[in-house]
Amino acid sequence: MFCWRQLEAGIKLAKELTLKAIGVVRNKAKPAAKPDWGKITSEIVIDSSLTKALDGLEEFSHIIVLYWMHQAARSKVPLKVHPMGSGELPLVGLFATRSPKRPNPIGKATVRLLKRRGNILTVKGLDAFDGTPVIDIKPYIPGCDAVADAKVPQWVTNQ
Amino acid sequence: MFCWRQLEAGIKLAKELTLKAIGVVRNKAKPAAKPDWGKITSEIVIDSSLTKALDGLEEFSHIIVLYWMHQAARSKVPLKVHPMGSGELPLVGLFATRSPKRPNPIGKATVRLLKRRGNILTVKGLDAFDGTPVIDIKPYIPGCDAVADAKVPQWVTNQ
Repeated sequence: MFCWRQLEAGIKLAKELTLKAIGVVRNKAKPAAKPDWGKITSEIVIDSSLTKALDGLEEFSHIIVLYWMHQAARSKVPLKVHPMGSGELPLVGLFATRSPKRPNPIGKATVRLLKRRGNILTVKGLDAFDGTPVIDIKPYIPGCDAVADAKVPQWVTNQ
Repeated sequence: MFCWRQLEAGIKLAKELTLKAIGVVRNKAKPAAKPDWGKITSEIVIDSSLTKALDGLEEFSHIIVLYWMHQAARSKVPLKVHPMGSGELPLVGLFATRSPKRPNPIGKATVRLLKRRGNILTVKGLDAFDGTPVIDIKPYIPGCDAVADAKVPQWVTNQ
């Protein structure tokens, strides 16, 4: 369902959009610990009604996972943050960071696909806690997703 | 609001998740035409209450845009598709393609950021029609988003 509200500039914005989880993350990463995400292997269990929609995904070495960061406190979205929560990094706009505290708490990870068995994908490096709802899976295609000459600010390279 | 339904495997999935548009795409791309997306310049007009959250984004050459593909018929989501709608390409699972007809019609584009002026981002190569709701903006960070040794199936390289 689309509702609209009128912005001051006369631009109509969809007010509310509804998502459904298509699956869930299963791993040993709990919010209490500080996981070394690069080393974590996760299973993504997809709703079994969608199993056939995964056919052919196993031919890709990497996939993009969009997930709902359900642990992020959505009521308190700051406009500026220190990246990685580090006071040593500059205070920058939220959208210039990958902070989970976003207006829409959607995470995007590019991960290695180790295995697909029916409706279960085994991946490495997914930075999502156990129980995280998954909302989309896309194949990683270098021509769409990689940029050869990208520039980033110094605080990124200094991390 | 989170609701849950019980899957046969005993896995709980969030049933419904609510998004809000944070902005809208403005360009000359209409569904009736077949735009050459790589050449199209778009403005992304962000809700002015979020202008400060864009501070520092202009230091990145490229950004990731998540958007709501409102033109995609959500009621008819096929499990298998021919990529790019081309009968010459093999029939594969929906999640092995970038088809807009997805359970959650979220598009992901990596685009060049040409300019930021207040709450308006000017970008090149965004494959979204005029009026598309934008749901997130993230900086493109090669260490997170690019993969050096990715493998893709032959139908991708033959396109």
